[in-house]
Amino acid sequence: MTASETTSVETAIPRTLSWQGGTDGFLRLIDQTLLPGEFREIDCRNSQQVWEAIKVLSVRGAPAIGVAAAYGVVLGLQQAIHGSRDEFDAKLRETTEYLATSRPTAVNLFWALERMSRTAQNNPDDPPTVMLERLLDEARDIDNEDRAMCAAIGRHGAELLSDGDAVLTHCNAGGLATAGDGTALSVFFAAAAQGKHIHVYADETRPLLQGARLTMWELAQRKIPSTLICDSMAGWVMKQGRIQAVVTGADRIAANGDAANKIGTYSVAMLAKVHGIPFYVAAPTSTFDLSLPTGGEIPIEERSSDEITHGFGRQTAPEGTAVFNPAFDVTDAELITAIITERGLIRPVTTENVLRCVTG
Amino acid sequence: MTASETTSVETAIPRTLSWQGGTDGFLRLIDQTLLPGEFREIDCRNSQQVWEAIKVLSVRGAPAIGVAAAYGVVLGLQQAIHGSRDEFDAKLRETTEYLATSRPTAVNLFWALERMSRTAQNNPDDPPTVMLERLLDEARDIDNEDRAMCAAIGRHGAELLSDGDAVLTHCNAGGLATAGDGTALSVFFAAAAQGKHIHVYADETRPLLQGARLTMWELAQRKIPSTLICDSMAGWVMKQGRIQAVVTGADRIAANGDAANKIGTYSVAMLAKVHGIPFYVAAPTSTFDLSLPTGGEIPIEERSSDEITHGFGRQTAPEGTAVFNPAFDVTDAELITAIITERGLIRPVTTENVLRCVTG
Repeated sequence: MTASETTSVETAIPRTLSWQGGTDGFLRLIDQTLLPGEFREIDCRNSQQVWEAIKVLSVRGAPAIGVAAAYGVVLGLQQAIHGSRDEFDAKLRETTEYLATSRPTAVNLFWALERMSRTAQNNPDDPPTVMLERLLDEARDIDNEDRAMCAAIGRHGAELLSDGDAVLTHCNAGGLATAGDGTALSVFFAAAAQGKHIHVYADETRPLLQGARLTMWELAQRKIPSTLICDSMAGWVMKQGRIQAVVTGADRIAANGDAANKIGTYSVAMLAKVHGIPFYVAAPTSTFDLSLPTGGEIPIEERSSDEITHGFGRQTAPEGTAVFNPAFDVTDAELITAIITERGLIRPVTTENVLRCVTG
Repeated sequence: MTASETTSVETAIPRTLSWQGGTDGFLRLIDQTLLPGEFREIDCRNSQQVWEAIKVLSVRGAPAIGVAAAYGVVLGLQQAIHGSRDEFDAKLRETTEYLATSRPTAVNLFWALERMSRTAQNNPDDPPTVMLERLLDEARDIDNEDRAMCAAIGRHGAELLSDGDAVLTHCNAGGLATAGDGTALSVFFAAAAQGKHIHVYADETRPLLQGARLTMWELAQRKIPSTLICDSMAGWVMKQGRIQAVVTGADRIAANGDAANKIGTYSVAMLAKVHGIPFYVAAPTSTFDLSLPTGGEIPIEERSSDEITHGFGRQTAPEGTAVFNPAFDVTDAELITAIITERGLIRPVTTENVLRCVTG
């Protein structure tokens, strides 16, 4: 990866990721590991660089990972246009299998890779150069559909919020997690665009502080009034009556509506329930994995202990400390008041209603 | 404050705070803001240095603050032995009122200062030099009683744990929070001393990470098997059946048993309740403030936003971020299975049972 540009953080809202040029082009994305201190974009010119960007969370958020992976497939095939179609297809398989290993939980990653593979399978007679054009078009479609999906989620979700509401969110399900305006944050942006005055409380979201670093950055750019809290404060602000609704994203949703999302979401959902506060998940239908009956089957990525013991550039626990660092947890469907998709609300969250929305 | 000594962290268990010398002596305490990276002791030679050490959390934990404040009174009066008794008493009032402003929530601070004042009031005819001796004796009594209190809490609390239990704790209610073995951690140390195999999960406890920095350090020194988690993971480890009991400390307990403790404790207690896990508070009877009918009357200290936005020397939120940073929250008595005091258990936690234990 090479740094294409370093500027101070600007008030204009830059694109999380974008394809530059034609089939010989490259993927430009914001390095989210540096925000909010530094705004820097990374140009990925091969699939390894995309894999690395997903792995180290330069690009993160289930929808954005899917779009990045789709473009990563194009990058992986740029050198394969001079061989046979069989060689092209072999390289396609190799590239999709490789990119699938970057993050184990986000289903949009597999969904996007599957869609790229299917595009090739559906056009077996195209020569490699034509096929590469077609794959770039498919990746661009995934990208554009993601933007439209965000707008639709915002529209449906905004109906759930009232003027004057204070809402809580966890992690970053914003524009930085998608190609568009985000999922959970899109709801807040759309409500604000409708003239509703809302106030957003953001959990900082340990260990990687996506809430403090990314959500607070996006809210400031959009001039949405906001307050940062530590994850441990969520229950207390609920008890004080400060929160009227919770909206988070999701990384994978099982057929029964159980939703995997950033670690800590389960606690927030349970705390919302006992305080009588509605808990909404905002996610596109591509986040559903109907092959999994319940959330118990969702694999949970465990990440490095360093994220906890050396999280601020300084060692914060004794040498040799044992750590448990799951990146996600699973929120039971019964804790979710509604799932906000681009096709409308799933409410109540039942297997039947999920199936109707996702396949309907 | 001067640094008396800098060494690498040793395996011997140093004293959290100790008086050095006679009435012209000084208070030596571990600078807990530097742990676990650096072990350094601070020598406080006047009451201002004690005030500062309490304020910046070099010494923290309700019982330890009480002991430090008592010695701080002695330091404040060392120069007053050459004047009249009236002047001595005026200086005593000034010193106690001043030290009381260092932390607003920890009731042991006020309790210790009140006890020092009463000692002077009960001996109105003693000349200043004799009075200073008496006050140093009183501070030493508070110190020694604190050690005995810790041992008794450990003894009573250990009965609640079984061999093989995994327990969760929040913040640091360990030896570093007291003059002795701690409150919540004393329970674990006593259980281990009885030959019970227990495993401790410690919340890192944002924003100041007392769990990661201090609790994990103490557990390592005592060779208690332990795992560090982020605060947001507590609910998830409970859901997975990993936790058999929760034990925390408290900073102030109202007459009905509502308990103020480090921010995040309320969420942990609520999550324990919904998962059917017993939630215990370990605290000496000096932590009770019977003048407050319920926890609603406990003042909650709000601390600097920098603790969240610039934790550990690096900016983690955008410039100008609004923050809510309460240092404590209040756990309702009904969420507390039992309070473990030096006099035994309060169970169930009711106004009647609190009164019987504290005044009985």
